Amino acid sequence: MEIIKEKSELKKIINGSILSPLGYKAGGVHAGLRYTKKDLGIILSEVPASCAAVYTKNIFNAAPLQVTKNSISIEKKLQAIIVNSACANACTGKRGLEDAYEMRSSTSKAFGISEHLVAVASTGVIGEFLDMQKIKQGINLLNPVAETCGAADFETAILTTDTVTKNTAYSTYIDGVKVTAGGAAKGSGMIHPNMATMLGFVTTDANISSDALQSALSMVTNQTFNQITVDGDTSTNDMVIVMANGQAGNKVLDENHPEWQKFIELLKLTSEELAKQIARDGEGATRLIEVNVSGCRTNEDAQMAAKTIVGSNLVKTAVFGADGNWGRVIAAMGRSGITFNPEDVTICFGETVVLNHSEPVSFSEETVTDYLKKDSVVINVLLEEGKGAGTAWGCDLTYDYVKINGSYRS
Amino acid sequence: MEIIKEKSELKKIINGSILSPLGYKAGGVHAGLRYTKKDLGIILSEVPASCAAVYTKNIFNAAPLQVTKNSISIEKKLQAIIVNSACANACTGKRGLEDAYEMRSSTSKAFGISEHLVAVASTGVIGEFLDMQKIKQGINLLNPVAETCGAADFETAILTTDTVTKNTAYSTYIDGVKVTAGGAAKGSGMIHPNMATMLGFVTTDANISSDALQSALSMVTNQTFNQITVDGDTSTNDMVIVMANGQAGNKVLDENHPEWQKFIELLKLTSEELAKQIARDGEGATRLIEVNVSGCRTNEDAQMAAKTIVGSNLVKTAVFGADGNWGRVIAAMGRSGITFNPEDVTICFGETVVLNHSEPVSFSEETVTDYLKKDSVVINVLLEEGKGAGTAWGCDLTYDYVKINGSYRS
Repeated sequence: MEIIKEKSELKKIINGSILSPLGYKAGGVHAGLRYTKKDLGIILSEVPASCAAVYTKNIFNAAPLQVTKNSISIEKKLQAIIVNSACANACTGKRGLEDAYEMRSSTSKAFGISEHLVAVASTGVIGEFLDMQKIKQGINLLNPVAETCGAADFETAILTTDTVTKNTAYSTYIDGVKVTAGGAAKGSGMIHPNMATMLGFVTTDANISSDALQSALSMVTNQTFNQITVDGDTSTNDMVIVMANGQAGNKVLDENHPEWQKFIELLKLTSEELAKQIARDGEGATRLIEVNVSGCRTNEDAQMAAKTIVGSNLVKTAVFGADGNWGRVIAAMGRSGITFNPEDVTICFGETVVLNHSEPVSFSEETVTDYLKKDSVVINVLLEEGKGAGTAWGCDLTYDYVKINGSYRS
Repeated sequence: MEIIKEKSELKKIINGSILSPLGYKAGGVHAGLRYTKKDLGIILSEVPASCAAVYTKNIFNAAPLQVTKNSISIEKKLQAIIVNSACANACTGKRGLEDAYEMRSSTSKAFGISEHLVAVASTGVIGEFLDMQKIKQGINLLNPVAETCGAADFETAILTTDTVTKNTAYSTYIDGVKVTAGGAAKGSGMIHPNMATMLGFVTTDANISSDALQSALSMVTNQTFNQITVDGDTSTNDMVIVMANGQAGNKVLDENHPEWQKFIELLKLTSEELAKQIARDGEGATRLIEVNVSGCRTNEDAQMAAKTIVGSNLVKTAVFGADGNWGRVIAAMGRSGITFNPEDVTICFGETVVLNHSEPVSFSEETVTDYLKKDSVVINVLLEEGKGAGTAWGCDLTYDYVKINGSYRS
């Protein structure tokens, strides 16, 4: 990451958040959907912002996703995002859809902005109805501010089984002006490629059209949010929304802008950082696992192999047990669906080579075990098929994952 | 199963095993690959038998699979299957392949049968070499017998983290003579469609050509062994082998035989029973989960949906926690890749309808929780797309799964 920073003049902002870019406010309150924790949050742009979104590929699209799609379809602009936790409002039929529309209209009234400029997101238990009384009261309690505490309140309000809030921000210079992107996210279980139970919100003050923003987001998502997995389950609710309000004052960005690539990197680093924070906070996780696969025929092959390895329950439990069991890495790769020569695979746990061109290597189990006990574990796999490379992130599988999910509803 | 039995005159044999069909012997010994447990077993047919096999689809094929494929390719006959546990002899390069061939030749010598009539199978840790000294001594210790204890010794010798032996046998009448099929299997972790770390051995005294047997096995495997999952990981070693030695004396079976379907059912019931025993004994499992999906466009769709649901970590932990969280069932189905109308899905836990045509139903949580605490749990899903139906089997995900796999090698 250091290298990328220098190359592109991208700078990470200390204590950065969705409020690091110009022209945004945020807040969160306890609406009463949960016992005591904040459970309703909002992000507000001073002006209608260009926007882009990606949604779950699960055939079940929860009501809030349908409402958000409707909002964006009208003018491709957003000014507010209203989010609740505790209840996903998914598989709730006609009544659930009406509730989501009502959540939108209440937000519209409370903040004096058009309904179609409001996006709605929900996360929590599937199959239960929203308590609309509480939602509406909560919306009226919201008091978004531009100060750091507004971002912190929002970040807290959107969490479910997450143990920490997720935030980041980066800045760069485009057309000589400072352009910033910030993000907040939640997601801990049901995390897998294609927008698992994950909500990601990115704000930027970049000046960019919605169409260009959508193309940037789709590309970046495939390399970041879609490359994390906690448990292989994808959810009905998840989405990533980006708002770009143009307050930075750069010339309108699109693919022909000479500094387009800089913006892509800004969005990518912001998204990657959020994705990694989600993976690290996977339910019950004690470790972030990063798998890099290189030497594949294509980048897509490498991404697929990396995702399969990092998603393997056996790899995940081996890392939890700090066991350098590379056989599980190779078994996962062998079923990933990509084509490669099984006689030429090299695997490293951190710096330690454990399989060299498909021949077992004698290595210090102690060194590997010590390495696998670290907070962040990197597994590198090298093939000899081509120049394709890709990365995926996940976490270990622990007793606490079972505990959390054996009793999530109660 | 009761219905099928009556319809087809299939009969389950009490205490049935691989020795229930005529003309087989079996045995198992402690060769010293493990501390005290038996770790080397053999099945022997009195005469060279027709055979069929299916192998892992993992791109890594362990050495014993390559040797078995070689044996079968020569004459499409087998007379012996030699199996060791503790070491998978996978990813062991040239030396591993030589070892597997030596295991075959030692068996050939010890029992006076041609090398190409011997199949070799291994299961255990990947990436370690076989101790050939112990393997060869063990082969000479083997003393296969036709009595029940021979089957029991074999069944024990092939286990790894399994907690129980797996066996079954069924019989029927074809051409007026009694035809029997029996089976043994192992498999507890790395269990997923396409021959996970699973070994299945079926003996039958049916008179059938190897080609017809192969076509029967391939068909049956897709509905049985390939429809179980423990942890989504497929292995490098797994295979199912059937030997048919013709001792029953029926007319040669093939697709044109008027009682062909009876033989298919015999093979299917035997395979299904072994597959379910494997799923029930999944690492750390406390419950067998059966998922039936019907009303799909095709049987393949139904099988795929059933397999996705039963393989979902969140469904598995919900069953472990006896939590009637149908949202996880629907989320898994929604990502299964099949096409269906999400507005018309009905889900039942046992007899209790929890989702009716995609509308949540008020149900007794207590009834469902009590049901989910049973040894065997059935989840039924009904769509309205067509007549396709399919079943898959798995188990719950528990603390013990994490425990076993966080420390398997040590």
